This record gives sequence, structure tokens and C-alpha cells, in this order.
Amino acid sequence: MAALIRVEQIADYVGQEVTVQGWVYNRTDKGKLVFLLVRDGYGFVQCVAFKGDLDEALFEQIMRLPQESSVIITGPVRADQRAPGIPGGYEIGVKDLKIVQAAEDDYPMALKEHGPDFALDHRHLWIRMPSQWAILRVRATVISAIREWLDTHGFINMDTPILTPAACEGTTTLFETPYFDEGMAYLTQSGQLYNEANIFSFGKVYCFGPTFRAEKSKTRRHLTEFWMVEPEMAFCDLDGLMEIEEQFITHIVQRVLRERGPELRSLGRDTSRLEKVAPPFPRISYDEAAEILLQIYNDEQDPERKELLKFEWGMDFGSPHETELTNRFEKPVFVYGYPTAVKAFYMEPWPGRPEVCKSVDLLAPEGYGEICGGSERMSDHNLLLERIHQHNLPPEAFAWYLDLRKYGSVPHSGFGMGVERCVSWLCGIEHIREAIPYPRTIKRVYP
Amino acid sequence: MAALIRVEQIADYVGQEVTVQGWVYNRTDKGKLVFLLVRDGYGFVQCVAFKGDLDEALFEQIMRLPQESSVIITGPVRADQRAPGIPGGYEIGVKDLKIVQAAEDDYPMALKEHGPDFALDHRHLWIRMPSQWAILRVRATVISAIREWLDTHGFINMDTPILTPAACEGTTTLFETPYFDEGMAYLTQSGQLYNEANIFSFGKVYCFGPTFRAEKSKTRRHLTEFWMVEPEMAFCDLDGLMEIEEQFITHIVQRVLRERGPELRSLGRDTSRLEKVAPPFPRISYDEAAEILLQIYNDEQDPERKELLKFEWGMDFGSPHETELTNRFEKPVFVYGYPTAVKAFYMEPWPGRPEVCKSVDLLAPEGYGEICGGSERMSDHNLLLERIHQHNLPPEAFAWYLDLRKYGSVPHSGFGMGVERCVSWLCGIEHIREAIPYPRTIKRVYP
Repeated sequence: MAALIRVEQIADYVGQEVTVQGWVYNRTDKGKLVFLLVRDGYGFVQCVAFKGDLDEALFEQIMRLPQESSVIITGPVRADQRAPGIPGGYEIGVKDLKIVQAAEDDYPMALKEHGPDFALDHRHLWIRMPSQWAILRVRATVISAIREWLDTHGFINMDTPILTPAACEGTTTLFETPYFDEGMAYLTQSGQLYNEANIFSFGKVYCFGPTFRAEKSKTRRHLTEFWMVEPEMAFCDLDGLMEIEEQFITHIVQRVLRERGPELRSLGRDTSRLEKVAPPFPRISYDEAAEILLQIYNDEQDPERKELLKFEWGMDFGSPHETELTNRFEKPVFVYGYPTAVKAFYMEPWPGRPEVCKSVDLLAPEGYGEICGGSERMSDHNLLLERIHQHNLPPEAFAWYLDLRKYGSVPHSGFGMGVERCVSWLCGIEHIREAIPYPRTIKRVYP
Repeated sequence: MAALIRVEQIADYVGQEVTVQGWVYNRTDKGKLVFLLVRDGYGFVQCVAFKGDLDEALFEQIMRLPQESSVIITGPVRADQRAPGIPGGYEIGVKDLKIVQAAEDDYPMALKEHGPDFALDHRHLWIRMPSQWAILRVRATVISAIREWLDTHGFINMDTPILTPAACEGTTTLFETPYFDEGMAYLTQSGQLYNEANIFSFGKVYCFGPTFRAEKSKTRRHLTEFWMVEPEMAFCDLDGLMEIEEQFITHIVQRVLRERGPELRSLGRDTSRLEKVAPPFPRISYDEAAEILLQIYNDEQDPERKELLKFEWGMDFGSPHETELTNRFEKPVFVYGYPTAVKAFYMEPWPGRPEVCKSVDLLAPEGYGEICGGSERMSDHNLLLERIHQHNLPPEAFAWYLDLRKYGSVPHSGFGMGVERCVSWLCGIEHIREAIPYPRTIKRVYP
């Protein structure tokens, strides 16, 4: 009996008879030959039906088989460099074909160009296209690699809550929901504060779940719902944090290169830059970055670009600044020691320089910008309380967070990485909305 | 130099000098000896400070060290069966001890009994207790085992959205949030419908994320926010589904037994029943289950219990029914073919018996009840549309879901498993709220 295989395994079955279950993605008729490009969830493979091999009625049906029809195909695997597909280079000679369902003829996502709104309205079908399939396969591998690395390096998964009480940093960008008799609950923007509690019981932890921003920014890099992994470590300072981050990112990139080559090639991704990702990553201080950016700004002649590149010490980086900076390096680059004023209240101050804090951002190459943001956290109770007051935050909402500095405080650090930004970088795509199965933006909560 | 180790590795370091970073959980003074029970996130280990070995001032400090103080301890590892701890049986002779922070003396979760509300109000500290630490370590292993099995069996992780448009099955148990100009969005109760779209591109998929029920039920088995894994498979019928479920559950149970023995023992869990979990699981039809339950009901003499066990064909099972049923089996038991009327609209009808559907629940032993619910899904477009009308659901909200039956429909099946119910069963705990880091119930959204 023919082995039921996944198309990703096809290279192992040359010369053998196999069965593939899937859907017709494309059909080309050449008289006595019909070429079907069939997708089975694990790849795309060319299947060749020859009139002489098949029952006449079946061959007639195959000649009229609409795109998306579900089929079960059995036949021998042949290596053929010309055969299209993902991975490509193999074809199946059709000895038997069972039509599970002949699709209706009006497939909305037929093989032609569609505008972005039409595609997004049909996301449940758009995901069947090779590009979307490839991106979301890379995404799954990124997620698996993230967890693999953390689970094998002493981190444990602690799911932090989605429904949270008081807002930590203002409510303007929070989604809110009425919560029984308890007033409003808010959808989480980060599990970090909970992670900080968790390390005191578990040493190294991570949360990995959906996070939410009710921001009105409508850019190629923003979603209202996105997935974020946030590792947090007890007994870890800023240097230790950067070491962890570079090992972590390297593992993800290298595993995607190893396992998702056909998908990346099908997306036309030039992987030469990704292949260079290995520790150590360059580390520059915010002061050094500021000097470079000031120089660039001063040298710029074009008035329009000069306006975009405007910079002075103390500013956070905009997208054009990040691109200029990262273009100077082959690998992702760490920028550490940002001005205290542009970062969150809980960051450890730089010893002897309170205007600077022990924060670090990791910027991806090729204009993909910040993919990780992290810091060493403030470990002193009184200093933290002072900051909470300075930021006009309600101390009672932070009572439990302050407890962590009273009962066994330790130096500790952590970072967050947005999955969709990482996937966009690895796949080399323009718009983050393709890096998540069902994107949510300010204009879209469907399907 | 002493190796920095995790307490879970201690058996490998007998006779060697090690360093452990952690917190003082308990202290017992015996004149010239101080016994510290130290937790490092990976275990609990006894550390013995002998006055003669240490600087006098340091020994004085150790004698007064409050619970939860953070410390770095260096010294030789000795095997000693009497030594308490998790795993226990080893101790460290203190050669050096560095106090990172002496905790304040008023630790709220000191070693005494606390009421449930007090413990829940201090969840950020309660998680440091050995029982909570052990349960949440088991939870992390359950999650890792779930993903490991799925990732190595052809499933890919597709995150389905948390913010969803129209309510699928009534809005009374849904949390809602205003969504910009798009009206209300609702927090997901299940990713299943999206999973069904995803299998047509990826074959086998799973989502694994938080799900929400704004239910007013206040039982030991309900949370308003809980984590659920939902696998879904194309080209899979009810029998195939049960095979997958029993392999999946077996893998989780066996991995927890293998890796979390010390934690389960510390919880006092009798693991003999868990050790028997292996395929095949018993499979009984709802009809057979109904016959057993009717017999039990008829035989019951106690009027109060008889009222609880009231049963007739067509009813869904209550908790007492599940307990009675599962007490008859050594392993988890499948009950399949429930009445169509008590199950969701999308389940495939039983051939020739439309009053019954191709659903299956998996019931855990020892009174832990349903841990998985699943079914073969309806694959026929017209029948599905009819059901949507019968259930008074808005067909336009299901237009995309109906599309899946027009363009390459295939037999397909899936199930959902609630992580916290599984963890409660494996740990043998009474209340589901201990199986999640920060439980959310109708009365609680803090901390």
C-alpha cells in the first residue's frame, strides 16, 4: 500500500508510490496531460495526470477540476528539477485520484491580484496562498524556537493574566471591559510586572501570550493585538541580559534558516544577512548612537530628509534614525543606556548618571527596527516608590510590586520581543499584518 | 571555582563545591548550627551553617536572617537521606554566605495558615510557597509537553484572535470591549472556527492561548480566564480524533511523571493511577453511559444523592454523573455520540441517527471530570446553513465559516483541552484557581 506522506517529506520517497491528501492550487491542461499543483498543508507538489493511465471519466473530471477542490492522489514520486512547487524538484505521477469535494467555481481568491482590503476581508482564504502559507509557517517555527531555547535554558513558562486591574501607565492606549462588580478590567500590555513577582519563586521565567494596544497609530508596524514573549531573570544584570538576548535571537534565526529554507526561498528572501547572525552582537551606548545620528543629521543636504533625521541628545529614536544606525552594522545591534526620561519608571538608573538608565534595545538590520526592548529593573524599594510618585502613578496599585523589593530583592533583568516584528524581519515582508493569522488593526476586527 | 548550580541538579554534585543563589524559606537554630532551607527557583535545599566554619559576625547575621532574605551560598554538597527539601536527601555545608538583601521582618505570608482570600490577595508572594511552586512547575511541564507532542506530530501553531467580532453563541457569557469605530469586540471563548479555516492551508493546526467566560458560576472548576489548547485536523474522522487524543494525553501524563516526580511527591499526590494512563482508553457511547447512569439512579436509596444523580436519556452529564461513570474505569474514558440537542451546532450528525452527533468528551478519573471536548465537524455546506438558521444565528456572521464548505470541504475533527483542569487532575488539587499563576474569578481581578 502507498505510504500517506506530507509533501515536505517527498525527497525521501523518490521511486516509491505515495498518497497525498490536499487541495488543487492550480491546473494546467496540455491535451493528454493535466498538471495539478497540489498543496497538502506541508508543501506544494506538481501532480501529472496522463490520459492513458486513467479511467476516461476520471480524466474528464480532472480536466475540469476547479481550484481548491479537495483530492486524495496516489502515484509514484519522480525527481524532476523542472517541477514547480515548494520545495519543488519532485512530481507525482497520478495513478489514482479521489475527488473529496469539487470546489465551487466562484473561488473569491482565484489566481489574480487582489487589493489589500479584499485580501484581508478574505483572510480565511488568503492564508491558503503560498506567500501567506510560507510566512505563517515561519511564524510557527519562530514560536517553537523561542520556547525551545527558553525551556532548555532554565526558564519556565508562567502565563501572566490578560485581564488586569489598574492601568500601569495611563489608560489611553488600553482596551477596557466591564468586570462583574469589580469595575473595569484592562487587557494587558505586558506581563513584565507579574514576571518580576514570578522570578522570586522560579528564578527564570517567561510569559508568552497576546498583548494589546488600543493605539490609533496606523503604520505598517502596528497591530492592536500581537504576541509577545517576555523573559525575566533573577540575579541578572544588564550585561547578562545582553548575552541572553544574543543567544536567544541567534537560536531563532538559525533554526528558521535550517528548517524553513523552502518557505524563505519561495518568498524571495535574500538570507545572506540572516546567515551572519551570531554572537557577539555589536553593543553601542545611547551616547555613541547619538553622536552618530547628530553627524548624519549635520551631513544631510536634502531638506526633507534632514527634517526626518532631526536629532538631539535625549530624544527617543524614530524609524529613520533606527534605519540609519542599523545600516552601519552587519548584525542586529544593541543600544544601551537610554535617557531615563524616555523610558519606563521601573528601570535601574546608571550608577553615577541618574539621567541615563540600564535599558537596552535590540535593533534589527535592514530597516526592521526595534525587535527587543529590555532593562535591568530597579531593585531598591525607596527609589522605586519615589519614581512611582514622580510619574504620578497610584502607589496602592503598585503595593504588591513594591513588596518584591522588601522581601528578598535581587538584581534582575528582562526583555520583551514582539513575535510579528521578528517574523517580518526574517521573512523580509513590508507589512506586519501578514505576520499574524488574523490581524487586528484600528479598522479591522474581522474575520 | 565553585559551579553555580540549580538545586534540581544537586544529585550530580555530591562531594563538590557549589554555589546556589536563592532565598531563605525557613531557618532553624541549634546552638552552633543553623539550618537554612533555601529555595532557588528549581528546588529547596538544606544548607547547614556551622559556627566554627564561619566568621563570627557573619554567623550572627545568619542566626537572625529573616525568611525570604536573598542569599548566595557556597559550599560542599553532601548526600544525607534525612535532609529535607525538594528533591531532598542532599545538603550544602555553608562555607560562604553573601546576603544580597535581608528581608523585612513582617513577611505577610510567613509560615502559618492563611485563609484563601488572604492568600489570593497575596498571590505574588503565595506563589513562593512549596505547594504553589510545585503546582506551577507541573503546569509549565504540561504546557511544554502539549507543544512538544503537537510540534512533532505534524501540527503547526496558529494563534487565533482574542478580539473577535460577532458573538457565536449568544453574548451573555462574553466579555466585551469597545473597539474604535467598529462597535463592540468580544474576548474569544474558543479558536475553533478559525482553526477550521486554518486546516485548509496547513493540514493540522493548533491554537493555544487564553480564553474567556464571563460566567457567573462560582465553582471550584471555573475561572473567567483560562488557557486552552485546541488541535484541529483535516482528513480526520471521530475514530481518528480519539486515537490522537489518547496519544496526546498519554504523552503529557508520562512526561509529567518522568520530570516532575519531586514536585508531585511534595504535593502528596498518589501517582499510581496516573502511571496506568496509556492507550487505548475505554470508549463508551453516550447510550451505554446513559444506561449505566440510569441503573445507578434506580439503585440509589439515599434520597439526597438520588436527587443529584437524577438522569434520563438526552441530558448532559453533571459533575456527580461524571464521577460515577469514571469510577468504573482505571483510565480516562471517552464518551462519544452525545445527543445533538446538548451539543454545539457545528457537529457532524451520526449517520442515520440525526438525534446523535459525532461528539466525544474525555473524562478524567478520580472525579476530575471532562478534560477534553471534541467532535467531527459538519462538512456539508447546506446542512450547516440549515443548523445556523435553526439555532437563530446570524448567517452573515458565519459567511466566512460557510465558505470553508464550498471550496474543498473535507472531513475534519478537533478538540479542546483546558490546561488548568488537566493540571488540577495531575496534581490532585481541589481548586482550579491554584493551577494558574494569577487566577481570575467573578470576584477577583487582582493582583
